[in-house]
Amino acid sequence: MESNVNIGVIGYGYWGPNLVRNFAETPGATVRTVCDAKPELLAKAQARYPSIQVTSNCEEMFADPNIDAVAIATPVSSHFALALAALKAGKHVLVEKPMTATTEQAMRLVEEADRRNLVLMVDHTFVYTGAVRKMRELIDKDELGKIYYYDSMRVNLGIFRDVNVIWDLAAHDLSIMDYLLDAKPYGVSATGVSHISGQPENVGYLTMFFENNVIAHIHVNWLAPVKVRQTLVGGSRKMIVYNDLEPSEKVKVYDKGVTINNDPESIYQALIGYRTGDMWAPQLDMTETLRIESSHFIHCINQGERPITDGEAGMRVVKILEAATQSIKKQGRLVELDVAEMAA
Amino acid sequence: MESNVNIGVIGYGYWGPNLVRNFAETPGATVRTVCDAKPELLAKAQARYPSIQVTSNCEEMFADPNIDAVAIATPVSSHFALALAALKAGKHVLVEKPMTATTEQAMRLVEEADRRNLVLMVDHTFVYTGAVRKMRELIDKDELGKIYYYDSMRVNLGIFRDVNVIWDLAAHDLSIMDYLLDAKPYGVSATGVSHISGQPENVGYLTMFFENNVIAHIHVNWLAPVKVRQTLVGGSRKMIVYNDLEPSEKVKVYDKGVTINNDPESIYQALIGYRTGDMWAPQLDMTETLRIESSHFIHCINQGERPITDGEAGMRVVKILEAATQSIKKQGRLVELDVAEMAA
Amino acid sequence: MESNVNIGVIGYGYWGPNLVRNFAETPGATVRTVCDAKPELLAKAQARYPSIQVTSNCEEMFADPNIDAVAIATPVSSHFALALAALKAGKHVLVEKPMTATTEQAMRLVEEADRRNLVLMVDHTFVYTGAVRKMRELIDKDELGKIYYYDSMRVNLGIFRDVNVIWDLAAHDLSIMDYLLDAKPYGVSATGVSHISGQPENVGYLTMFFENNVIAHIHVNWLAPVKVRQTLVGGSRKMIVYNDLEPSEKVKVYDKGVTINNDPESIYQALIGYRTGDMWAPQLDMTETLRIESSHFIHCINQGERPITDGEAGMRVVKILEAATQSIKKQGRLVELDVAEMAA
Amino acid sequence: MESNVNIGVIGYGYWGPNLVRNFAETPGATVRTVCDAKPELLAKAQARYPSIQVTSNCEEMFADPNIDAVAIATPVSSHFALALAALKAGKHVLVEKPMTATTEQAMRLVEEADRRNLVLMVDHTFVYTGAVRKMRELIDKDELGKIYYYDSMRVNLGIFRDVNVIWDLAAHDLSIMDYLLDAKPYGVSATGVSHISGQPENVGYLTMFFENNVIAHIHVNWLAPVKVRQTLVGGSRKMIVYNDLEPSEKVKVYDKGVTINNDPESIYQALIGYRTGDMWAPQLDMTETLRIESSHFIHCINQGERPITDGEAGMRVVKILEAATQSIKKQGRLVELDVAEMAA
Repeated sequence: MESNVNIGVIGYGYWGPNLVRNFAETPGATVRTVCDAKPELLAKAQARYPSIQVTSNCEEMFADPNIDAVAIATPVSSHFALALAALKAGKHVLVEKPMTATTEQAMRLVEEADRRNLVLMVDHTFVYTGAVRKMRELIDKDELGKIYYYDSMRVNLGIFRDVNVIWDLAAHDLSIMDYLLDAKPYGVSATGVSHISGQPENVGYLTMFFENNVIAHIHVNWLAPVKVRQTLVGGSRKMIVYNDLEPSEKVKVYDKGVTINNDPESIYQALIGYRTGDMWAPQLDMTETLRIESSHFIHCINQGERPITDGEAGMRVVKILEAATQSIKKQGRLVELDVAEMAA
Repeated sequence: MESNVNIGVIGYGYWGPNLVRNFAETPGATVRTVCDAKPELLAKAQARYPSIQVTSNCEEMFADPNIDAVAIATPVSSHFALALAALKAGKHVLVEKPMTATTEQAMRLVEEADRRNLVLMVDHTFVYTGAVRKMRELIDKDELGKIYYYDSMRVNLGIFRDVNVIWDLAAHDLSIMDYLLDAKPYGVSATGVSHISGQPENVGYLTMFFENNVIAHIHVNWLAPVKVRQTLVGGSRKMIVYNDLEPSEKVKVYDKGVTINNDPESIYQALIGYRTGDMWAPQLDMTETLRIESSHFIHCINQGERPITDGEAGMRVVKILEAATQSIKKQGRLVELDVAEMAA
Repeated sequence: MESNVNIGVIGYGYWGPNLVRNFAETPGATVRTVCDAKPELLAKAQARYPSIQVTSNCEEMFADPNIDAVAIATPVSSHFALALAALKAGKHVLVEKPMTATTEQAMRLVEEADRRNLVLMVDHTFVYTGAVRKMRELIDKDELGKIYYYDSMRVNLGIFRDVNVIWDLAAHDLSIMDYLLDAKPYGVSATGVSHISGQPENVGYLTMFFENNVIAHIHVNWLAPVKVRQTLVGGSRKMIVYNDLEPSEKVKVYDKGVTINNDPESIYQALIGYRTGDMWAPQLDMTETLRIESSHFIHCINQGERPITDGEAGMRVVKILEAATQSIKKQGRLVELDVAEMAA
Repeated sequence: MESNVNIGVIGYGYWGPNLVRNFAETPGATVRTVCDAKPELLAKAQARYPSIQVTSNCEEMFADPNIDAVAIATPVSSHFALALAALKAGKHVLVEKPMTATTEQAMRLVEEADRRNLVLMVDHTFVYTGAVRKMRELIDKDELGKIYYYDSMRVNLGIFRDVNVIWDLAAHDLSIMDYLLDAKPYGVSATGVSHISGQPENVGYLTMFFENNVIAHIHVNWLAPVKVRQTLVGGSRKMIVYNDLEPSEKVKVYDKGVTINNDPESIYQALIGYRTGDMWAPQLDMTETLRIESSHFIHCINQGERPITDGEAGMRVVKILEAATQSIKKQGRLVELDVAEMAA
């Protein structure tokens, strides 16, 4: 029998209310405490959920033996300290993406969770959407053949944040890429600029290199006039267009590609043939993503399982973000990633 | 009074027939000769235009005193030799894009044309479209304010060619960018791969760096399941989305942006405000682009004027293509462009 | 000084919760009581709003001297009896669309409200959207010139209801049309069928005739594979495309049309010229529609003003729905509308 | 062995040049003569095709024993007289849509062709497109189940013609409907107006009634700001969206619908369930439509076969157009079609 999991949520700003609402409605979970430094946000939480305790002191939450797990929805810079304290207090942890501000911090959290046998999960929300799970399913069935590239564009007129656009927007694409591709990149070349003096980069372009000429590219921009959420995944057999703004047909599978004729007598033009076929948009599971994700967290705590988006997934994303930020400073120079670590 | 211009066209494969048809219908121009190495293509030209002479020997065309100008629609590798021979024979020259295979070749053609006072024009076709001319007009009127970025995506399931995808597809974007932006880039970081053994790169990503944090990015792919032709131009005042696949509203102008509040007392979040307003799609001149371009070539010959897409524009594009190809080999390392030359 | 308005809401099924939430957040309004026949819905309302009284007996609500106004969100068949009882009890009334099941009922409510000097408002929600208000503004400024036609398509895979698709979906379009067009139709020709035995019509087509060759057409379908919400408004000067599914550019204004040359010497082909110009998508007020509507209801009660969507607007819509239903039975035969009444 | 078919084309205005070009490139066909009343159009034809004879006298063409077949691309009002004369002269006939100006004329042509054993084909071009043929194939395989409705919208800023918008635009939709649906309509209710004094109707709405609650609707407009070419075909099993403006995915098949539960104990809401599944866009044959059509005409002449779009198909379309025009005058009153004739 699964026991109920009591949860404390830290941060009741932009994302925290979604976490509270979700855990409040997830069977097997109870939100017991909300912590935030701002009294007006605590008042809001209290008014909405009279039965929940509120506090501006996280230490209280960590010290509370009735709290089993902590969900952290604060700015990136505070993730590490809060998550570490929670783990040290014996709490399971769900932390917003990106998991930490540095790879070193990420490694430290992974170690701490492993040593204490606690669940450490990072909130890579998109991994739990029907669209991304369907793409993973198609890849698992080898529908796409050999993966050639992953190419994503995520732009809008955005909210400038304390981190640059890569840490904010590309973190989503990297988490999806990490989930979909078994191979891990060995290096990053990134470029980007800030158009507003004193602000972090608001435009960024990342290329990730993999073995066997696999390539990934992510294009993010906070200063675009239109919203675009489009990903192309090219395979030797089929190719996907994933458009998250489509109301229902978010994933389209194209039976298109090139065929290579290895006849050594042919001149090169004849070697490549084009193949075009049907397009197919599979029906997607429309269950609310956050519900699937919160249930998965509760399930992992109860069963002692490792989450799909575990601390190592969080760390791999942070590692690429860190390398990309270095590469931007060097105007695109390749920054290598430790492949052994990435594949760990 | 303008005198009639007699034209010889070299190459009757993919693009040559368009040039012949256009010049045949352009007032003030007469196509006199078509040259191609393949007899079956010459037969096709002859059948379609009984009054035109055909030859497999370009030297004949160069030697013909009745030919005033030569249009070259052959593979890139042959552009230089043919254009140089034509100039040396005293002919005005229109050459397909990219103008040459190297910057050195491009410089040599520019010098030769200048010395002989001949028109050297490169067929940067998109520059003559109603959409691109309208964007230039908007920039000239300072509708966009300070230009922040130029960002273009040009992908499709393409025809693999003898040059890589950058020389094929990105040449279009670079020619548009060269026409729209007064500033010239000082460096390029590019990445790309080939997914088909022994073939040139079929995916490429280029970042161009300009002074004052202006940035440009071009994204090309011959192995994409869908066709995309989308360019974003971001300015401090307004922003443009140019979608060449839209049947009529190709250029959309968005009255959107950020406003910076320099109040030193404010915390940074308060410094940036979002501005959203109307969208406007100006009517575009739908005159056939090739007609505008061929008339411009004839006009420049008759008036002794420099074409909008002159040899120097062609050279600037080739220079970036060359630098990008070098950068791809170094996995994104910056390759600097000689700014003085670029601005020449 | 405006006094607070105490509101009772009848019906807590599909739409009622939206009304309760809105009035709860509207300054100057307080939701005091919720009435529904189903105990489980009352329990839901109580849990969500502990301070609100719940009852399954509407008579109690009508008898409560502390209730100033009643909002009715029940099936159409019950609107008349509930609204009449509320008015007789001296309450202001907001009733869902369509206002009543018959024109006679609608007239009776209008009379009752007028006699008692009470506000009778019908919930023609779309009239309060930024998109529809912007279109009205454009018509008021005579941007469109003479209105030629109003043409709307509203289809989806829908929820079959107790009324037919015309009473359900076309009621929206008729309410928008009633608000936008000053002229009122003199007749209706409608066709439609049911594809499911024993069910009301699930496909319907309505043509409304106006003086001076103005025409309106509404096309509704509950059995369509895709969702479409598109309206064309054609004028002699400009034309509008209103697509409610567009995330931001819902209203597009086209500077297009025909120009008539009355030169009697011309043959007829020469008489008509085509004019195409810019397209323009004005920024829309994105304030939540229900908030604007609930505030308007409160304002009208406090100021003794007539709402924009008053009982007569509700009656005009019901009258067309009733005539259309008759016409459907006669397979398209014109059913005349009493113009004097429509214009009243 | 198939013998060559010599063709005369009457009318070299808008559509005639397409016919000449096509037959000129169709194996087994030779265009021998072009006839037009306007000398400047004949000069144009002669310049383009030096080997073709031109004449302003159709009688000459009919009298020429070397002409096997005549293609007629003139205004509708002249179709009958020309086609009849051609048939009487023993020529096979291809005539533009709509086939004739009246049903009586259409019947007369059908009889004449039958009596003389000549091919009479009407140019219902859309029937030969890859999209429409694919839809027919899907219906033949019973992919859609029972057909519920056919619903088409064809609007644009158009060219006002000598016939009204129904005869011009709806003729296309009726020809597609005639080809796709085995059942034939028993009546028509139509409405429409002219917004330009003295001109034929420029907006029209047609409802066609079939047995078993099948319904079809066609919506045409020459005064619309945007171009729409969208058809919905609803079936009990699957539904189609056919958008002719899509560059490649013109036909989308939706695995969606309602399921009826006949449990007499259930209340009606429970009787209807919604079914949503995958969407699928089959690859379409992109061969040029006119080539397929001209080859079909030649094939039928050589084999003595009846064309897919024979005179009876042409007559059925004319019959509906005629009935719709009558219904428009009566503001939507049903005009019955002789079912026996329609099914002939």
